[in-house]
Amino acid sequence: MPRPIADGPEPQYEKVVSGYETFHHKDRFGTDWGGELAEFSLAYETWGELSPARDNAILLHTGLSSSSHVRSQPKNTHDGWWEAFVGPGRPVDTDRFFVICSNLLGGCYGSTGPSSTSPKTGEPYATDFPILTVNDMVRAQLLLLDHLGVERLHATVGSSLGGMQSLQLAAVAPERAARVVSISAATRSYPQSIAMRFVQRQAVMLDPDWQGGRYYGASFPHRGQKVAREIGTTTYRSGPEWQERFGRERIGDGVPTLDEDFSIEGYLVHQGEKFCLQYDPNSYLYISKAMDLFDVTAPGADGRPLIDNITVPALVIGVSSDILFPSWQQREVAERIEANGAEVTFVEIDGYYGHDTFMIDLERVGEPLRVHLEA
Amino acid sequence: MPRPIADGPEPQYEKVVSGYETFHHKDRFGTDWGGELAEFSLAYETWGELSPARDNAILLHTGLSSSSHVRSQPKNTHDGWWEAFVGPGRPVDTDRFFVICSNLLGGCYGSTGPSSTSPKTGEPYATDFPILTVNDMVRAQLLLLDHLGVERLHATVGSSLGGMQSLQLAAVAPERAARVVSISAATRSYPQSIAMRFVQRQAVMLDPDWQGGRYYGASFPHRGQKVAREIGTTTYRSGPEWQERFGRERIGDGVPTLDEDFSIEGYLVHQGEKFCLQYDPNSYLYISKAMDLFDVTAPGADGRPLIDNITVPALVIGVSSDILFPSWQQREVAERIEANGAEVTFVEIDGYYGHDTFMIDLERVGEPLRVHLEA
Repeated sequence: MPRPIADGPEPQYEKVVSGYETFHHKDRFGTDWGGELAEFSLAYETWGELSPARDNAILLHTGLSSSSHVRSQPKNTHDGWWEAFVGPGRPVDTDRFFVICSNLLGGCYGSTGPSSTSPKTGEPYATDFPILTVNDMVRAQLLLLDHLGVERLHATVGSSLGGMQSLQLAAVAPERAARVVSISAATRSYPQSIAMRFVQRQAVMLDPDWQGGRYYGASFPHRGQKVAREIGTTTYRSGPEWQERFGRERIGDGVPTLDEDFSIEGYLVHQGEKFCLQYDPNSYLYISKAMDLFDVTAPGADGRPLIDNITVPALVIGVSSDILFPSWQQREVAERIEANGAEVTFVEIDGYYGHDTFMIDLERVGEPLRVHLEA
Repeated sequence: MPRPIADGPEPQYEKVVSGYETFHHKDRFGTDWGGELAEFSLAYETWGELSPARDNAILLHTGLSSSSHVRSQPKNTHDGWWEAFVGPGRPVDTDRFFVICSNLLGGCYGSTGPSSTSPKTGEPYATDFPILTVNDMVRAQLLLLDHLGVERLHATVGSSLGGMQSLQLAAVAPERAARVVSISAATRSYPQSIAMRFVQRQAVMLDPDWQGGRYYGASFPHRGQKVAREIGTTTYRSGPEWQERFGRERIGDGVPTLDEDFSIEGYLVHQGEKFCLQYDPNSYLYISKAMDLFDVTAPGADGRPLIDNITVPALVIGVSSDILFPSWQQREVAERIEANGAEVTFVEIDGYYGHDTFMIDLERVGEPLRVHLEA
C-alpha cells in the first residue's frame, strides 16, 4: 500500500486504496504525445471468476478520482465507489462475470503517476511525467488484460472519464470487446467542459505550494486542490438537487462573513477537504488534461474516425441535468455508433443529480446496465 | 480620478473609470448587518436633462464589475458598457430621459469600498469594511437621488446584480419608482449561484498575496483575482456559443502542456487578465457576498414579503441559456410581481449568449426595454 499523499490523518485513504493487486509492465511504454515511461504499474482489483472459456470478463473504467475499489472484497472490506452496482445479483453480477477494475495510469491510487519514482532519476516524476491521453490509459489496460489472459471482454463499461475510456477501447481494439457501455461521457470534450476543468487546474497551480509541481517531500498544495475540488463539485451536481437539499439554509449563527455562510458552501468545503488530502494534485492535472484531449471522432491510422470502428452492441446513458457532459453529448455518442449499423440502446434519465447520477441512481442506471450485460 | 488598483500599465482602467461626478454623503451610514461607514462617496454619471417636473429620471444599476460609465459622455468619450443601449434614440433614450448610473457602494470605481481610506484609521478599510447587502447599496443610491432632487424615478433598471438592486429599490421604496425593469436577475440567490460565486471568492483568498485582505501597498493578489474571473466567465456565457466560436480549436503548436492549449482556455485567460489588474479583489468579495445574501422575498418591517410592495408596471427579462441565473428564476420574479396585481411583461429570450445576453442582444433586450420605458 502506498503512503498517503499528504501528511496528517487520512481516515478515507485506506478505505479506497488498499488490498489491490499490481500489474507491473517492465518494458518501455511510449505515450501518444511522444513521451515515455521506462516501465509502469497498474493497481487493479477483481471480483468473480474468469470462466474456463475466458469469455465473461467485464472491464470497469473509473472516473477521474476513483480508485480500483469498485466494491468491497476480502482484502479491503470497505464499501467501494459502485458498491450497490457490482456484486452477486447486482447489475454487474459477479456471480456471472469476472469483473476487473484498474486505477488509471497517471493516477495516485497505486498506479504509476506523477507522484511515482522515476527509475531514471530516483525522484518523483512530478511534472516530468509525460502528457497522457485517454488512449494511453486504455493501452495500459489492454496490457493488463493480456497479463490476465483476457483476449476478449464480455463488455467494456465506464462513466464520465470511464465512459470515454470505454468508447476508446471499443474503438481502438474492436476485437477485444463484445459490448460497450458509456455513461455520462461524450465523443470528445467540448469547450464548456474544457473551461470547467481548466479553471480547476488553474486553482491547483495558483497554490504557492504547488511549486511548478515539485512539491513532493515539501509542503503539499492541498489548498489549491481543495478549491479545485470545490469548483469540480459545482459541475458534478445540479441546482434543483441543491435547491431541495440546501435551499438558503445558513450555517453558524447566521451573521455573514467573507467565508462560508450557507449550507451549500459548507457542503462544498466538506467535499474539497475530504478530497484534497488524499488525491495527488499532479495526477489531477494530468488526468484532467487527458479528458480535454479526448476525441474518439479523430481519425485513426486508416483515416476514418475511430468511433466508426464500434459495431458491437452499445448502451449509452445520459442525464438531463448534467451540466458537465450535457445529455446531447450522449445522444451524439449513440447516434454515431448507430450510424455504424450497431445495435444501440440510448437511455436519457430525467434525474436531478446531474453528472453524479451514475453513482447514485441504482434503478435507472443499474437496470439498463443489467439488461445490456445479460442480453 | 482614483489611482489604478494595481501597479503596471492598465490601458482599460481610464476608459471605464474617469470623468464621473462624486456624491459625498458626509454622515454616518449604518449597514444592514450592524456595521457602519463614517461617511461614503458614490461615483456617478448622468446623461440627458432632468425635466422641469423632475419626472423623467431613470436609474441604471450596474452588475458586479461595471463602473458608472454606461455610455460615452464629454468627460469620458470612451464607449461605456451599455453604449448601444443608452443614448439619443436608443432603447434608453437620453433625448427623453435623464439617465443616472452610479458605481456600487463597496466597489472600486470611484465609490467607497474596501480599498478606500477609513477616516478612523487613515488606512484602507480592507476587510474591516462592513458586510454589505443589496439593500445597503440601494439605500446609498436613494441618498444620491435625494442629492440630485429626484423624488420619483420614471424607472429603476438593471441586469444581473443590477436587476437585484432594481427589484430591491422598487420593493423598499415603492413610492420612488414608477416602473421597474429587472433583467437576468432573481427574487433571491439560489444555492447553485451561491456555489458558483463561493468558488470564485475561494480562488481570490487562495492567493498568498491576498494576506487576509491587507494587501494594499504590498503585492496585489492579481493571480487569485484572475482565476476568480476565469471561473466567473464560465458562468457568464454558454456552451453552445463557445462550441460555435471556439470548438476544439488549439492555440500555439498544438502540442499539449499542463497550461492552456485550447482557444477556449486562451479566451478565459484573456478575460481573467483584463480584469484582474483593474478590479479590487476585496470589492469582488464584498459585492459577490452581497449577491448571495440577496432575498427580496424576505419579510419587510410589516412582516410581508418585500416583493409584495411592487405594484408598478414591471418588465422582467430572462435568457434560456443562462446557467448563473436560470430563466425559471426570472419567471418567478414575474409571477411574484404579477400576483401583486401589477402589470408585468415577461420576456424569455431563447438566445445562446447565456447570462451576458443583456450586454449583447440589442434587439431582443433593447426593444422590450424601449417599449416599457416609453409606454
